[in-house]
Amino acid sequence: MTVSPFDHPLLSALLGDEEASRYFSVEAEIEAMLAFERALAEVEAESGLISGEAAAAIVAALGTFRPDTTLLRAGVARDGVTVPELVRQIRAAVGEPHGASVHFGATSQDVVDTGLMLRLKSVVEHLGLLLTETVMRLASLEERFGGRALTGMTRMQPAVPIKVRDRIMAWRAPLQRHQQRLSEQSRRLLVVQFGGAAGTLEKLDDTGPAVRAALAAKLGLADAPQWHSQRDALADFAGWLSLVTGSLGKFGQDIALMAQGGTDIALSGGGGSSAMPHKQNPVKAEVLVALARFNATQLSGMHQAKVHEQERSGAAWTLEWLLLPQMVVATAASLRLAAGLAGQVESLGR
Amino acid sequence: MTVSPFDHPLLSALLGDEEASRYFSVEAEIEAMLAFERALAEVEAESGLISGEAAAAIVAALGTFRPDTTLLRAGVARDGVTVPELVRQIRAAVGEPHGASVHFGATSQDVVDTGLMLRLKSVVEHLGLLLTETVMRLASLEERFGGRALTGMTRMQPAVPIKVRDRIMAWRAPLQRHQQRLSEQSRRLLVVQFGGAAGTLEKLDDTGPAVRAALAAKLGLADAPQWHSQRDALADFAGWLSLVTGSLGKFGQDIALMAQGGTDIALSGGGGSSAMPHKQNPVKAEVLVALARFNATQLSGMHQAKVHEQERSGAAWTLEWLLLPQMVVATAASLRLAAGLAGQVESLGR
Amino acid sequence: MTVSPFDHPLLSALLGDEEASRYFSVEAEIEAMLAFERALAEVEAESGLISGEAAAAIVAALGTFRPDTTLLRAGVARDGVTVPELVRQIRAAVGEPHGASVHFGATSQDVVDTGLMLRLKSVVEHLGLLLTETVMRLASLEERFGGRALTGMTRMQPAVPIKVRDRIMAWRAPLQRHQQRLSEQSRRLLVVQFGGAAGTLEKLDDTGPAVRAALAAKLGLADAPQWHSQRDALADFAGWLSLVTGSLGKFGQDIALMAQGGTDIALSGGGGSSAMPHKQNPVKAEVLVALARFNATQLSGMHQAKVHEQERSGAAWTLEWLLLPQMVVATAASLRLAAGLAGQVESLGR
Amino acid sequence: MTVSPFDHPLLSALLGDEEASRYFSVEAEIEAMLAFERALAEVEAESGLISGEAAAAIVAALGTFRPDTTLLRAGVARDGVTVPELVRQIRAAVGEPHGASVHFGATSQDVVDTGLMLRLKSVVEHLGLLLTETVMRLASLEERFGGRALTGMTRMQPAVPIKVRDRIMAWRAPLQRHQQRLSEQSRRLLVVQFGGAAGTLEKLDDTGPAVRAALAAKLGLADAPQWHSQRDALADFAGWLSLVTGSLGKFGQDIALMAQGGTDIALSGGGGSSAMPHKQNPVKAEVLVALARFNATQLSGMHQAKVHEQERSGAAWTLEWLLLPQMVVATAASLRLAAGLAGQVESLGR
Repeated sequence: MTVSPFDHPLLSALLGDEEASRYFSVEAEIEAMLAFERALAEVEAESGLISGEAAAAIVAALGTFRPDTTLLRAGVARDGVTVPELVRQIRAAVGEPHGASVHFGATSQDVVDTGLMLRLKSVVEHLGLLLTETVMRLASLEERFGGRALTGMTRMQPAVPIKVRDRIMAWRAPLQRHQQRLSEQSRRLLVVQFGGAAGTLEKLDDTGPAVRAALAAKLGLADAPQWHSQRDALADFAGWLSLVTGSLGKFGQDIALMAQGGTDIALSGGGGSSAMPHKQNPVKAEVLVALARFNATQLSGMHQAKVHEQERSGAAWTLEWLLLPQMVVATAASLRLAAGLAGQVESLGR
Repeated sequence: MTVSPFDHPLLSALLGDEEASRYFSVEAEIEAMLAFERALAEVEAESGLISGEAAAAIVAALGTFRPDTTLLRAGVARDGVTVPELVRQIRAAVGEPHGASVHFGATSQDVVDTGLMLRLKSVVEHLGLLLTETVMRLASLEERFGGRALTGMTRMQPAVPIKVRDRIMAWRAPLQRHQQRLSEQSRRLLVVQFGGAAGTLEKLDDTGPAVRAALAAKLGLADAPQWHSQRDALADFAGWLSLVTGSLGKFGQDIALMAQGGTDIALSGGGGSSAMPHKQNPVKAEVLVALARFNATQLSGMHQAKVHEQERSGAAWTLEWLLLPQMVVATAASLRLAAGLAGQVESLGR
Repeated sequence: MTVSPFDHPLLSALLGDEEASRYFSVEAEIEAMLAFERALAEVEAESGLISGEAAAAIVAALGTFRPDTTLLRAGVARDGVTVPELVRQIRAAVGEPHGASVHFGATSQDVVDTGLMLRLKSVVEHLGLLLTETVMRLASLEERFGGRALTGMTRMQPAVPIKVRDRIMAWRAPLQRHQQRLSEQSRRLLVVQFGGAAGTLEKLDDTGPAVRAALAAKLGLADAPQWHSQRDALADFAGWLSLVTGSLGKFGQDIALMAQGGTDIALSGGGGSSAMPHKQNPVKAEVLVALARFNATQLSGMHQAKVHEQERSGAAWTLEWLLLPQMVVATAASLRLAAGLAGQVESLGR
Repeated sequence: MTVSPFDHPLLSALLGDEEASRYFSVEAEIEAMLAFERALAEVEAESGLISGEAAAAIVAALGTFRPDTTLLRAGVARDGVTVPELVRQIRAAVGEPHGASVHFGATSQDVVDTGLMLRLKSVVEHLGLLLTETVMRLASLEERFGGRALTGMTRMQPAVPIKVRDRIMAWRAPLQRHQQRLSEQSRRLLVVQFGGAAGTLEKLDDTGPAVRAALAAKLGLADAPQWHSQRDALADFAGWLSLVTGSLGKFGQDIALMAQGGTDIALSGGGGSSAMPHKQNPVKAEVLVALARFNATQLSGMHQAKVHEQERSGAAWTLEWLLLPQMVVATAASLRLAAGLAGQVESLGR
């Protein structure tokens, strides 16, 4: 079953990105959730909330734990979230008398949201590297062809002569601002979520904030008060993803327009046609436009999900799951395609 | 790799729909494309465009043809579409001298779009059945509880007393209008696409329209002039999908509001919580809202894709692939969940 | 104050449409609301719900009634809707003893939604005429230039030769389907809304449906059970508006691409530039694309508004007001510009 | 003619914001454009690009210049932008021999985009003040009621007891992050645009960057290389606007849910109903939700506009005009309503 092109065995070769997808595989997700439960047990033992023996038993059990995915699947259908059934299975694996110490004071959203952050940390690194790569490829184009002439086009009409570097600058400068934006917003994004049933860590009494800070440190995330019903950092990150694909969409659109004919550009490796063997379609350029419009579309939903009622909205939270992973993969694919497209440019300008 | 919850081994139990997903599997897609090539060979032989021997050879070869998916994957990455490589493989399977008669006069978009229509025909049937089922479940609720009292709520404030049937009517009546809409728009939707390289069937001379009509008939689709750059029927169908999920989102929102407390509703089988064993979360109701907002989000992109430049836009066409299949599955899931939720209602009103 | 280009004293010359705007002026809105109250009094007198004297007094008072807009403005800020204050003013104008018979059994939403329908009826006519005009202009282009040659362009690359009529067909055929769609959906759209406080016409006892039917007949709308929380017809109409602008956006995009240079098209009356006097910008073509993307954007919100909780959602209803009127005007403007652009074509093809 | 509720003489009392609207009035727009032309003449005279006499003549003429708006309106309809006709009128007002020195080296987009930035600078200040006010109102609520008890609600079900301050924190903390975001992104946003015909300031030779820097300084904006086809800062600002309204939408939704009944909240000054005099509708709370969903909708279009082809896209640029001003006013209105709503809270929790 492959409804999304990002998961599609064929289309993902064009529209997907293997590494970005990996962070949203069920394996990566469960691994991140188990990392949360393990770290939680450890810091709760250090704070005396559970016994050292319990923590040791939990860590040991998690070392070899393999979830029963059939039951997890049934659990999701019933509970709307994997965690209740996953915790039940972990508790069973830990056994008596320490099973009850698993997940102490935590709630499903703590596991899912912190688990997401653990993976977004890798995503941010991956996208950062891809972005640097694309910036470098554009810089190299500028070095090779920057001084050549091009007809500036405004409102799709010939305007005045410009240099190739003028147009490349319009592709590259926004990407460099996106690098700056990513570094600013990552500080707000990559934080632990730990709040318990309704955000108050009511089972941890006064130790709540200290345990949360220790949990964050152990997981390599920044510490922050619970934010389970405050989704601004995720919506803002989605905005960043769409800013990136939007800038690359402009790059793709410009390349496709230049490739219409004439001598403005020479591209190697264009796509073939089943009806017209002579064609060299600028496939990557077109897909950059498609991915830009895709992310611009999804972004709206991520902002709709900000109307997150009360202490936890099942509706708004589920909506994010339907949107964010695909936006990440679209962005990684777009960066990968843009770097590839820049690499296909054999000549630019005259 | 499972980026979309609709493909996710766990989440799809809640958010997906197995049958709807099946129509978008790569197997179903290829099967539909092969059906196109087979039917095309047959009708072209009947019209004398290719020889009867060629058609027989093609039909025979297709009977046992299994594509090399590794090469197909590479083909998509290069060409932006599966078809050029698929046709190459089919031609190789048919061999000399008839290989060249495969796909005669057709282009990639003919195969992909008609292949989509073959599957949408099943989708329309499936959704129609699910819709009927949901209407019936609501009718049954009305029969059981329609005469009971409920406090009408306007602007989220108690207004005046109403009957349970008044509220159920607001859930059911739009669904019945959606049935009518589906029947109206299916006539425009489920049509063959056959236009050749740029829509003119230039290789078929005067036989074009007759061959296309025969092709449509053989495939069980309606005949229509090529529409490869006219995407209104698809955007309109996407609108229908979102109308359905929107109406069910209202149903879900109402149920979730009723389930907040008090005695307006009793639901069996609510979702459990990892922190609060006492809870009975109205998971299906929440997911109906999430799916409504998801489809409302996607719809925008399907309409952006209507700006489909010239005789074929790679960008606009690819954008549809990223949106429509998930909208279909979201709609099927929503109908399935709505029927299930209606079935969980043990009491409504007082 | 002119925040929207559709209301802007300068930009509306390009982006607006005077007639469509007129239907959304405050004057037209109030006139429609008064028409509702007048017709309601008349049919309620015929049914004996209010006295004939009361109806006569109401009709007489409405004949000269001029609302105090300062108070109406304050009323909207307080009540979220004009009607409570408007009804208060009408009652004061009618005076004792018949003031209390004004608006009998009705609620704000009856007045606002039926008032909208009265204006949408004119809107549908206006758009229908503009659509016919545009179809005719395209037919005339086809007649003049249809037989000339054009290079078919697929994926923004030269493909095979086509005729000008092939491309015009891709502009015209969808518009003709939109004519058919409009006639289908108008039947569901242009209906009266009359439900009272929570949709049950609880003050009218058994006469409710008959009074509603009489009210509809008097107002020239179709009769239908109350639909105040069922917004599918409006969302569907919004979809139709965006289908129209999307098809015209494709037309605009194609014209702008043809006008890039070469000899495919000659346009009279292109827009000037403040920096480059030689330019002839295809302004209307560009605006068609902008309006297509605008409506595709707004449509998403109209579908979000379908999650209309309980018997009346202030949030979802207000959201429609922010979106639908501008979609209508964008569509009228788009049709007007498309007809104008077609009229500017002096040559097409070679 | 008032198509947009933000311009509507009645509805703007609820949905608009007078000060924010003022920055988008045609008067403010023209004033900003004239400020650009005045400053440009002055810095170009300082750089010797035009004579001191010319600058003096331009400044003098602009002091009393009143545009002919009828001709401006016709100019927009023809050119797609006000500037060519506006410059023509200014040149005529300056007269011979200095008229030709007006607008030297500039293009329409320089005037419009820098003119926008001059107004966005005031907008950013205005929104910043409104945001501070709302944060303070929430802090005051926390001070008054923070220690009281509330039932935490997760997935719209009673969860565990929390304090009123826990819920207020979920309203306030995102707003404080938005303050930080605004200060970060303002540095990238509030910059001059000066590029000439196609961005290269080709008429200014080597003095281009220095003149641009002087122009920026004179106008109180930061200096930056031309960004006419790089719209990331505007899309990012639109994202910020929607983050703000999204957070306030959550506040509104929570208030509306609390106000459904029971004793969680007491609000003064609720809205009245035309059918049910007893009602106290939480109108401001509902409108906060509507405005959140409105901005979430518009945001998608601002990101679509990032696919800004070549050196200037009439289509993408026009699309921004249709979206951004209304997003600003929606945000100002939302902040104003949120502060007002917080002020209406007479009691919170128990």
